Amino acid sequence: MAGSSIGQLFRVTTFGESHGVAIGGVIDGVPSDFELDLNEVQKELDRRKPGQSAIVTQRKESDKVQFLSGIFEGKTTGAPIGFMIPNDDQRSGDYSHIKDSFRPSHADFTYEVKYGHRDYRGGGRSSARETASRVVAGAIAKQLLSKLGISIVAYVDQVGSIKLSDKDIINFEMIEENPVRCPNNEVASKMEELIREVRKDGDTIGGCIKCEIIGVPVGLGEPVFDRLNAELGKAILSINAVKAVEFGSGFSSVEMRGSEHNDSFLKDKSTSTNYSGGIQGGISNGMPINFRVAFKPVATIVQDQDSIDKFGNEVTVSGKGRHDPCVVPRAVPIVEAMSAITILDYYLINRSRVNY
Amino acid sequence: MAGSSIGQLFRVTTFGESHGVAIGGVIDGVPSDFELDLNEVQKELDRRKPGQSAIVTQRKESDKVQFLSGIFEGKTTGAPIGFMIPNDDQRSGDYSHIKDSFRPSHADFTYEVKYGHRDYRGGGRSSARETASRVVAGAIAKQLLSKLGISIVAYVDQVGSIKLSDKDIINFEMIEENPVRCPNNEVASKMEELIREVRKDGDTIGGCIKCEIIGVPVGLGEPVFDRLNAELGKAILSINAVKAVEFGSGFSSVEMRGSEHNDSFLKDKSTSTNYSGGIQGGISNGMPINFRVAFKPVATIVQDQDSIDKFGNEVTVSGKGRHDPCVVPRAVPIVEAMSAITILDYYLINRSRVNY
Amino acid sequence: MAGSSIGQLFRVTTFGESHGVAIGGVIDGVPSDFELDLNEVQKELDRRKPGQSAIVTQRKESDKVQFLSGIFEGKTTGAPIGFMIPNDDQRSGDYSHIKDSFRPSHADFTYEVKYGHRDYRGGGRSSARETASRVVAGAIAKQLLSKLGISIVAYVDQVGSIKLSDKDIINFEMIEENPVRCPNNEVASKMEELIREVRKDGDTIGGCIKCEIIGVPVGLGEPVFDRLNAELGKAILSINAVKAVEFGSGFSSVEMRGSEHNDSFLKDKSTSTNYSGGIQGGISNGMPINFRVAFKPVATIVQDQDSIDKFGNEVTVSGKGRHDPCVVPRAVPIVEAMSAITILDYYLINRSRVNY
Amino acid sequence: MAGSSIGQLFRVTTFGESHGVAIGGVIDGVPSDFELDLNEVQKELDRRKPGQSAIVTQRKESDKVQFLSGIFEGKTTGAPIGFMIPNDDQRSGDYSHIKDSFRPSHADFTYEVKYGHRDYRGGGRSSARETASRVVAGAIAKQLLSKLGISIVAYVDQVGSIKLSDKDIINFEMIEENPVRCPNNEVASKMEELIREVRKDGDTIGGCIKCEIIGVPVGLGEPVFDRLNAELGKAILSINAVKAVEFGSGFSSVEMRGSEHNDSFLKDKSTSTNYSGGIQGGISNGMPINFRVAFKPVATIVQDQDSIDKFGNEVTVSGKGRHDPCVVPRAVPIVEAMSAITILDYYLINRSRVNY
Repeated sequence: MAGSSIGQLFRVTTFGESHGVAIGGVIDGVPSDFELDLNEVQKELDRRKPGQSAIVTQRKESDKVQFLSGIFEGKTTGAPIGFMIPNDDQRSGDYSHIKDSFRPSHADFTYEVKYGHRDYRGGGRSSARETASRVVAGAIAKQLLSKLGISIVAYVDQVGSIKLSDKDIINFEMIEENPVRCPNNEVASKMEELIREVRKDGDTIGGCIKCEIIGVPVGLGEPVFDRLNAELGKAILSINAVKAVEFGSGFSSVEMRGSEHNDSFLKDKSTSTNYSGGIQGGISNGMPINFRVAFKPVATIVQDQDSIDKFGNEVTVSGKGRHDPCVVPRAVPIVEAMSAITILDYYLINRSRVNY
Repeated sequence: MAGSSIGQLFRVTTFGESHGVAIGGVIDGVPSDFELDLNEVQKELDRRKPGQSAIVTQRKESDKVQFLSGIFEGKTTGAPIGFMIPNDDQRSGDYSHIKDSFRPSHADFTYEVKYGHRDYRGGGRSSARETASRVVAGAIAKQLLSKLGISIVAYVDQVGSIKLSDKDIINFEMIEENPVRCPNNEVASKMEELIREVRKDGDTIGGCIKCEIIGVPVGLGEPVFDRLNAELGKAILSINAVKAVEFGSGFSSVEMRGSEHNDSFLKDKSTSTNYSGGIQGGISNGMPINFRVAFKPVATIVQDQDSIDKFGNEVTVSGKGRHDPCVVPRAVPIVEAMSAITILDYYLINRSRVNY
Repeated sequence: MAGSSIGQLFRVTTFGESHGVAIGGVIDGVPSDFELDLNEVQKELDRRKPGQSAIVTQRKESDKVQFLSGIFEGKTTGAPIGFMIPNDDQRSGDYSHIKDSFRPSHADFTYEVKYGHRDYRGGGRSSARETASRVVAGAIAKQLLSKLGISIVAYVDQVGSIKLSDKDIINFEMIEENPVRCPNNEVASKMEELIREVRKDGDTIGGCIKCEIIGVPVGLGEPVFDRLNAELGKAILSINAVKAVEFGSGFSSVEMRGSEHNDSFLKDKSTSTNYSGGIQGGISNGMPINFRVAFKPVATIVQDQDSIDKFGNEVTVSGKGRHDPCVVPRAVPIVEAMSAITILDYYLINRSRVNY
Repeated sequence: MAGSSIGQLFRVTTFGESHGVAIGGVIDGVPSDFELDLNEVQKELDRRKPGQSAIVTQRKESDKVQFLSGIFEGKTTGAPIGFMIPNDDQRSGDYSHIKDSFRPSHADFTYEVKYGHRDYRGGGRSSARETASRVVAGAIAKQLLSKLGISIVAYVDQVGSIKLSDKDIINFEMIEENPVRCPNNEVASKMEELIREVRKDGDTIGGCIKCEIIGVPVGLGEPVFDRLNAELGKAILSINAVKAVEFGSGFSSVEMRGSEHNDSFLKDKSTSTNYSGGIQGGISNGMPINFRVAFKPVATIVQDQDSIDKFGNEVTVSGKGRHDPCVVPRAVPIVEAMSAITILDYYLINRSRVNY
């Protein structure tokens, strides 16, 4: 119970389900006296919004955030920032056909058993709609980090088997130029093509997002259990549809030898390679932090599927056409948000050290 | 700061560095009135112990755990269990050659910058020796879980490029029959050969561990941030040398389509496939939980390496021959321990629910 | 930072300042499948509302709570309950006369120094208006506890030097019959008279609230630091204007001897006296839990007071006539709310124990 | 469960029962690179030690602390400090007469019901012996605070009805000059006489301790739930035998008017009076923090008492002569320790704020 909060000194709590009155949250521990750019927050939300391009869900949600507290005369006061995003789509449509059914690889079954009473409209609390609240909190964290010289960039580096390779040029400025959010427009267009094809089949496809965090000072992370990679990993694995996360060399390190994998120090205390992914012994070492995240194919597909209902009857379930054929283009700002929330929290924790 | 605790209702706190007086910990929130088998705890420690076979470090540590509290007349009292494992090797050997140097891909540099004053003897707090305390706590958690019908088995499924394939028979009884802890003796002997070869080169190699958790009831995991996979992921990523973790289909899900990846429900509410890895929507679904963990090659190698010291001078560092050429054989009980600690904590949290 | 949450498994987070858009909160860890009476929640809010009687502040606030999530078809779903109470009074009145001044014994000075940027309108986050959110959460906790057989009653037992004595009959039904919320109408009318007199002087007066919690099973409380009295004490001391809390015999125990103070067990495992206040060794013993809370006189008085502003200049501050001359009548539901939140949390924590 | 830890960034975890192998703990989040005076820590322990004077228990415990980790070359490393205090008295004496009995106003009954299996030797975990571990952690916190200009002094200001009055001169240097730890030797000797008399009767008596914390900067405390007084209150209420705590004017504020109680600001931002007790709006205001703590008479008395055993039989229980007739002289260092732990934690939390 009570799993809706994350962070220790910078703590984000969210509420809301897909078809309730509103989703929203409380951002506590916000450093005070900081001038927030609220348009910038809305822009981040718009990057996650349904209907933003032809390859994402065509659901209609205006996703306008309203701030309720914690900001005065344009600046943070140190009091918690409460906010809400009204749900446009609250009509109690006819859900009778799915209310008792368990959609395969959704959370219908586990929520039903755990909670007894389930909001079956559009997934309820288990809907990825909840992540919009994370994006609001993350957008604020990003602004606070930016002033501290820390920037976070995530992008799509794989859709199905189409993957950015080492020889593809990566250009961060291209990320927002294509609907896939891949930093290479050429590869992006192949990914886009694949997504369109998958959608035509009434199917979905997985993808990968890579994230880089630049400008992190040496020292963030708290051994032994609260290592920076452990907490970042938790934050990322808490995103819907994520199946895996790897830091730096990740799974490829398994086939390497120590003599090859060790990152040599240069005289300026940077390292010549960065297989460590910017973290050593659970503490940031000043090099860019990087990790890669695997998203499974969205569970909602248009094709008919055999399943059961809560009474144990066999049923057929079928998705509507308004779902994402591939989740990664809209998940990019979510990965950035969870990273920003974690890094800011650890930045504050690390600041608390007294230098005797 | 204060990163040495993990868990909410079942909470483990560790202390100790490799060459101090002792390592140990406090296990709090232990269910009471439970008859512990302390020999079984020691056996788990012995699985992690140095010198247990020809392919691990030949360091000598007796690793005998002493219990200081929380057990009375052979049973737990609900009071915290304090324990310690004395360090055999506390002599202040001559460390002058390494005390100011930063070993590549170790935590020397990050600890030095973060803490100012560093225990340079054998890695101090950043040494994997700390994980012995985790194994003690995990062994107790495993006994408590076992009585609840939950079992945890981890094993090595890859060393370098030698990997268990789908056609290799997996036999859990073989795990302890070979020094690699691979559930197929034939593959194990190839892995062992590779490890010996790598050691002869004064080098190290990475590996993978797979973990399966059987008998978990439906309902463990707390949406949205404290999903079961998120907290398991954090616990695993907090282990030394871990670079990645994947649940169920993991990175392979990226290339799959939803129609293929979705796990169909059978009439008994199990699923025909288990790409979800036993967790849906962050909550256990009753199927076996499984995940795979990547360990990088150990950073300490015998070969000479160029590095710098804390004054910015270029230095040469070289390892002693007593380090592990591959960490995975000894890491198997650690992966099991972190899994057990997390599952027991979430089991207790889930028990707290009132049925109205 | 991040001090706006309380509770571990049943966790309440609040946001909002007195003159912002709204106050509100998130109640996480709500047991599911429970039919909430939302009118009952509003009634509790009305007990705290300004303008409810002639002896409280005559400010106008409608204090209507709006629920945003976590309730579906009239029942809790286990998802967090988000809620808000719009502030009627958001006009940016002319605060120029007080925006730089520090009102004596208010939080103006400490907030100014700590946060740099302060919402000076009506106290901002430090305003007791925040406690309305606590009452909402507490009202829900009370309903959940009631179904478990646990009831909580608080009442005023002292205003200034007028105090319920041992010979005054206590009748819980009278509590809501008089505006003071004293369980003896005769004593209440003397208290009321004193409050009117104090108000006429443009002054304020302190008071005491006593709280009794009936039906708590044996076993709530987690030694050693999370004793039930310690956590209840924290919850109560977090209420604005509270200066002291005493459990059971409290300060009077100091002059007693052990032979007199010890509570003898009866054969049914109750005790003949209850100096322990229902808690022994930090754990509830099944007897009624009781404690007494001291509230200081409200700091805002109509009389002129000398003070300073943030530039160190001497200034005169004077309160408006719309403040409470005595805080205790409206604080009764707040004390009940904080008690309910704590007891429910500890109830859930205690439920998690496995019986081996 | 898991109630044996306190603090967020500076976190103390204790273990151990009165007649186990040892008590001890883990102090995590210790600022690094600080030169600890370990003799000073032992001196604090000696202030709490049994047998230190004629008016405390004559039990024999050497109470020598052994440090196991976290200190290297005389300085803290930032790693957790593990420590233990061996119990001299572990012999399994004959407890058959009390093992099933419930001593009145002890924790025997509540532990028995909550945990099922209870360590009945000398109170087990509920024994005040556990507080020795708090004194170790507090002594370290005090040293760290001292370097930051913060000092903490506690003393006895009441035993039974003998009380320091406003006209008694308070001299902090006298505190350690008399066995009562009262800052006025004359009053102390009256208190001592009373304690001797009470002991002669085979009885016990209550007492009060006052604590003053000097040099705390403005800004410590996290609204709204984690107010400094709320967390200090919790820390103090977690001490065995504490029944009440009051800050500043405390219960006496109830009879005061706002015009009298408000603390006027002086031009240097101090206040002319200190009814607030150094905390306004939950945040330290730079004035001395002070509070007063009520301790009940010790429950163990030599006189025979009627009680019951766990089978519901009526029994007679009687204490041995080695218990404290009054707990406050030995509780002074415990109150200081809990204050130091809390203040240091909040100091670190407050340091984390970024000044934009």
